Order: sequence, then C-alpha cells, then structure tokens
Amino acid sequence: MKRTMIKSAKSHIGESIKVSGWVHRIRKLKAVVFVILRDRSGLVQLAVSPVLFEQNELKLESVISVQGRVIENSNKLGPVEIQVNEISVLSAVTEEVPLQINGETITAGLDTLLNHRVLSLRHPKETAIFKIQAALGESFAGYLRQEEFTEVHTPKLVKEGAEGGANVFSLEYFGETAYLAQSPQFYKQMMVASGAERVFEVGSVFRAEAHSTSRHLNEYVSLDLEIGFIENENELMLLETELLRHMLKHVSESCQNSLEILGVQLPVIPAEIPTLKLSEAIEILKEKYGRTELEGDLDPESEKLIGEHIFKETGSEFLFLTHYPQSKRPMYTMPCGETETQSFDLLFRGLEITTGGMRIHEMEMLIQSMLKKGLNPEKYSTYIETFKYGAPPHGGLAIGLERLTAQLLGFSNVRRTSLFPRDCNRLTP
Amino acid sequence: MKRTMIKSAKSHIGESIKVSGWVHRIRKLKAVVFVILRDRSGLVQLAVSPVLFEQNELKLESVISVQGRVIENSNKLGPVEIQVNEISVLSAVTEEVPLQINGETITAGLDTLLNHRVLSLRHPKETAIFKIQAALGESFAGYLRQEEFTEVHTPKLVKEGAEGGANVFSLEYFGETAYLAQSPQFYKQMMVASGAERVFEVGSVFRAEAHSTSRHLNEYVSLDLEIGFIENENELMLLETELLRHMLKHVSESCQNSLEILGVQLPVIPAEIPTLKLSEAIEILKEKYGRTELEGDLDPESEKLIGEHIFKETGSEFLFLTHYPQSKRPMYTMPCGETETQSFDLLFRGLEITTGGMRIHEMEMLIQSMLKKGLNPEKYSTYIETFKYGAPPHGGLAIGLERLTAQLLGFSNVRRTSLFPRDCNRLTP
Repeated sequence: MKRTMIKSAKSHIGESIKVSGWVHRIRKLKAVVFVILRDRSGLVQLAVSPVLFEQNELKLESVISVQGRVIENSNKLGPVEIQVNEISVLSAVTEEVPLQINGETITAGLDTLLNHRVLSLRHPKETAIFKIQAALGESFAGYLRQEEFTEVHTPKLVKEGAEGGANVFSLEYFGETAYLAQSPQFYKQMMVASGAERVFEVGSVFRAEAHSTSRHLNEYVSLDLEIGFIENENELMLLETELLRHMLKHVSESCQNSLEILGVQLPVIPAEIPTLKLSEAIEILKEKYGRTELEGDLDPESEKLIGEHIFKETGSEFLFLTHYPQSKRPMYTMPCGETETQSFDLLFRGLEITTGGMRIHEMEMLIQSMLKKGLNPEKYSTYIETFKYGAPPHGGLAIGLERLTAQLLGFSNVRRTSLFPRDCNRLTP
Repeated sequence: MKRTMIKSAKSHIGESIKVSGWVHRIRKLKAVVFVILRDRSGLVQLAVSPVLFEQNELKLESVISVQGRVIENSNKLGPVEIQVNEISVLSAVTEEVPLQINGETITAGLDTLLNHRVLSLRHPKETAIFKIQAALGESFAGYLRQEEFTEVHTPKLVKEGAEGGANVFSLEYFGETAYLAQSPQFYKQMMVASGAERVFEVGSVFRAEAHSTSRHLNEYVSLDLEIGFIENENELMLLETELLRHMLKHVSESCQNSLEILGVQLPVIPAEIPTLKLSEAIEILKEKYGRTELEGDLDPESEKLIGEHIFKETGSEFLFLTHYPQSKRPMYTMPCGETETQSFDLLFRGLEITTGGMRIHEMEMLIQSMLKKGLNPEKYSTYIETFKYGAPPHGGLAIGLERLTAQLLGFSNVRRTSLFPRDCNRLTP
C-alpha cells in the first residue's frame, strides 16, 4: 500500500490507508492506546489496541508504518483518527530519548539542543525555523534571477582571499598555504567584470574569530550579490529594499504554518527605509543616549539604541547607515571624499544584517588603497588583474542568512538559526 | 538617461538611447569607426566618428557608456546600428589584452584560459557554459522543492566527516583538528532522521586527492539529495531519472541561445534508463572487449566502453550500474546479500556523474560495518547517535555539477566547466 501523508488523512475518511512516521506521544488507556504519529506534514492520532501496541514494543520516537481505517473523530489534532490494524516497525527505539520533544516548547538549554541536534530538530518549533530559512534562501535566489542575476559558485579554498584581516582559517594545500574564503568578495567582483554583470551566490563562508558571541558563527551562509553598471550605493540600498520585500512576501505566503507555530509576525518594510549617515547616528547617540566614546563604528549596544530610536521616530525596524569611514572598511571599498566611503550597513531590529557598498573599479586606486592599509599588492595579483582590462563601476552586498533568520524570528542567539552551528567550542555534530 | 540593454536596442529605432558595455571589436574606416559593443545581453554595432573615437582613446575591452540614435541597418549582428554622439569611458584599458576573446573561438590553451579567467569568461562560448550550469542548479533545486524537499545548509568544517577515506583536507580549529567535508553525507542523513525526510543541498565539497586527472577537481559543487521512507534504490533511480528529465527540459527552454552558441544538442533521457548489475557489466566487458582484469569496479576506459556498448544496444546515453561490492563502497552503504550493496552509479556518456544508494539506518549494523572497514566507531559518535532514536529507511545520491555540465556540453576536461577550478597545481585566481 502506498504511503499517505498525515495532512491528507482527512481526505480519506472511511478508507484504509498507510501512514508512516515517528511516535510522537503515547497515552495508554485500558481499552486503547492513543499514539500520536508525526511525519513531515503534521500529526495524527492513532487508536491502537493494547495487544498490538505491546507486540511492537513501541517507544517514543520509534519509526513505524501503520495501516488502518480513517474515521471521523474530533480530537486536538483534527477531525480524524486512524484505527490501526497493522503496525510495522521501521526503526526500533530501545532507550528513553534524552530530550523531550513532544511538549509545547523544548525546555532544554542551548548546548543540549545542539548536542542532540537530530532529536531537537524534530520539535515543530525547531522545524519551523529551518522551513522559514529555506524559504528565505529560495526567495533571495528567485528575486535575483528575475532581475537577471546569474547564480555562481566560487571557490572556498583561496590564496588571495584574506581581505587583509587576520581572522582567517589556513590549511596546507599541496605544499602551498590556502585560506578558507571569508567571503566570495573578490570572486563576485571578478564575475561582474567577466561580463556576467549581475551575480549572486548562496554559500558557506568562514571566519576564524576566536571570540564567542551570540551574534557570530565561525562558519555561516552568506547571501551575496554583486552588480555592475550602477552609479552609487543608493541603487544597492533600493535593490536590497525590494529584495527583502520580496523575501518577506514569499515567507508570509509559503510559511504560514511555520510562522504560526513560532508565533511570529513579520515586519513591514517601509516604502523607503530610513537612512542616516553613520556620523549622524553617532551624533544622535551622543546627544540623546550619552554614548560619547563612539568613533567610526557602532558597538552592539549602540546599534540597538539607534535602532530603537529610529523605530520610535519612524516606525521602521530597518535602518540604513551610510558613509562609514575608510579606516573601518576593507581596502576594496570605494572612497567618498577624504575620509568616508560609499558604503552602508543595514540594521534590522538593532543588529547589522547586511554590509554593502560600491567597490573600487580602477586598478591604480585599488593599489593605493591596499598600500594605505599596509597590504602588499603583490599578494593580490590575480585580483588586481580584474581591473586592468575593463571593469565597470559596481557594488554589492551580503546578508548573513542565520542572522537574518534570527532577527526575523526573535532569537537573540544566532546559533538557534543554524542547523549545525560552528563556534570556538563546537565542531560537532 | 537610463541604460538600455543591447538586445532591446532594436525596439528603439529612431530613438536616442544609452547603452553600456565592453568594446568587443574595432574596425576603422576612413570616415567612420565601427565599434562592436558587448553587454550581458548581446552585441551591437556602433558607428563612431574618428574624432570622437580618438578623443576617448578606446581600446579593446574598455568599458564605455554611449548615447546615440538607433537606426535600421543590416549588419552581421542584427537589424540596427547606433550612431554615437557621446561617449563616456567608465574603465579605460591602456594595454593590449593578453587573450583574444572576440574571435569565433578562443584558441588559447587551458592554463591561459584559467590564468586570465576574468577575460576568458567574456567570450560568448565561455559565458554560455556557466549560464547553462546556473540553469542546471536552478532546476535541480526547483524540481526537488516541487517534490517537497527542503533545502539545507550543512557545515563544511567537520570533525567526523572523513568517511574513512584519506583524501581529506585538515586544518587547525581552535586547538582541534577539523576536516573539510568531502560531502554532506552524514549531515543529509541526519536531516532525514531529524524529521525533514527529504532534503537537498547545493554546496562545495573538498577532496584532497593528489592526482591530477581531467575528471577530478579538489573542490567542486555537489548536488546532493537524501530521502527517507523509501524501500529500495530503484526509487532513487526513478527519482533521478525524472529529476534529470526536468533539468534538461529547463535547460532546453531557458538556455536556447547558449546551447546554440555552443552547438550543443541535449541528450534524450529514455522512459527508463537501462540498468545493469555491475557484475553483468564486468561480464560484458570481459566477453566483448577483452577486459579481463576488472574486479569490483570499472576504470575510466571500461566506463567508456560499457557506455558505448549500451548506446549501441539501446540508444541510451545513460546507464545505471547497480550492486557494487561492499569492499568498494563506504561503510554507510546498505548491504545486499553477503558481498553486494544496494547502491548504484549513473554513467552518462561513459563517465560516472552520480553515486547513490540506500544507507544503513540501524545503529548496530552501522557499527558492524564500520568495524569491518577497520574504522573506529568512537570517532563517529554523533553520527551514530542519529540511528539510536528512530531513523527511517533512506537513501540518496549526489551529482557533481561540473561533471554533469562537462558531459552535457562535450568537454573532456572538467576544469572547463568550473569558474575557478582548484587542482593540485592551481589555487588562483
């Protein structure tokens, strides 16, 4: 008999069907055992005779296939129940599960959740996170394809990818030293200059930062885009506004059930996202919040404060900060005047979820910028060649997928929105 | 003035438009200079006065924006020409390009192509490869989403990911040794067991194989899927057949121009792809082709021969080989009888493009399989826990994106279908 998905059981009242899944809950009465079965589509109540139940030694989380008749029955899970007359155990469980996953919420701490990841992900509230995350990734790609962007796959093993920072993993590569890409930055710029003009990539990036915070992962998924023939960063900010609008629309349409399970209300993206120069934001933080020590960048606390300030003033949970100083931005960032850059961050609910900006597309300017940062241009020779034979003005941005998901769903720790997070203390499972 | 894409110029006859792109070709006559301009949408002929041309010192591959009137004109590139009255140089080129990219084909050798990747990718025949590759990736994901698969992102930095092989890159990770994932194998199995049931991933994988062949890359893109609640590998083979049918249909519909540029005819996927047991294939190779030395696996030459044999017999360019011996398959492969496994390869035009099969979903059997292979189960403790608390029968497969692209487009070297290939001798650009 062919498997029926649990969510479709209600269309089979009076018929005999087969359903398969995990034993989610067990309630023994004298004359009957109620077993709640869970598959990827939902939950259903099974009525099993005590004899049949004992014969199969069912425990929580056993994987079973059952055949039985669907009858109308009003219970918490819906309008039907399956009266089981045959059980086949596909995967027997012999021990108690170390994590209770059939309660309203999981009460375990973060480490327990992550140590028993295959179990914790079975909880509907955990499942929902990653269905929404998948929808965010899908709609990022979908929107950009519609805007004629080409998806690219660029190498994660690189020789020149260090961007000048120290937080990079290195390894031996056939007698050479290779690095794990901190971002596809150089490669997406190369792809713009290679004539593709508009490219995006959804891929893993690696940061060897030794400090452990709730906002950082040592490996994460970066939603990257780069676009040529634009004039300034305002075009990028407009593009991101429409991109996010599309992504949230897609999530709201395709993940209604997951959003309900998590009790999440999606934010509204204003017609125009408020924009401040970084220096203006620092001025506000100084005058209104007494943050007198800020210089050229915001700390997490200031990001939160300025986010709240703008929300109070405009009702927007999004805020673009622009004109970051050259001292705080990588060498490839297009300058703006003597000290600033054509760059921006997007804050969402007081946390940076995007960094972006215009890039330098003139070789001489790029070399000068490297020298100013104390970098050796000889170490970047293949990157520099990109700008020797015709590179259009261009810019781009990157969104951290786990951060975006966390902010959207209201998690304060980005580990909650990574399937298998990597940090200084965690390399398993 | 807003930029018009070159392919749309023909809808603007009589109007003044702005187009932007790279100087593809220059032909100087006495009274006029014909400049062919290239953008991501195509090529167009510009008529430029010699004075204007000299003022702007145009060279091949300079990036320019021009304004001019579109007139009807029958030339090789189409029904229009743009009579330029204003040129703005966005990126000046001062040197000769080291690679001729405006000929019918690129004549340079592979190393030159790859050393000057940003240039070589500008040739329409190179561009076409990666447009088709992007369409393959898009349709892989699209088909699986339609079949209720969830996209996942699993870690590339792993502790247990070695699958027992030696060909793995290692690095220091905050005082521990981490490996670069050779595949998302363990993690996609975990995701099936976590209740997602059906997952796919498009991501980078890493193989530290020191030998350099035309079929191998040290980093490549793997199209991975894993599915629970299936009974045997035939279901996987059917799924892959329909998946590939969908992908080729998508390519044929969305990449007509790229296929024409490359002169490629897509293969037909038969209603049912021919299937041989590996032992049967070896028998045929022995009897008909004198390959008496084969044992438990095919070498590249035998893959080619058996592919040709099946093509002659059935007209199919695809061939499933099944029942590989346990000695040749990883420890997680579901056995079939005493010596064989429930596994398969898919050969396409005589090259393996997929490996797949059923996986062991019982913990004890898995531990025994590890021991038989001389592996220490203690090193795989978090993977093994997956099978302790209920894991459904499942299987999966992986398709190498670069290999599939190469076979489809008729390239004998898989480096031709990687944007920035990585091999023992190449870590740049």
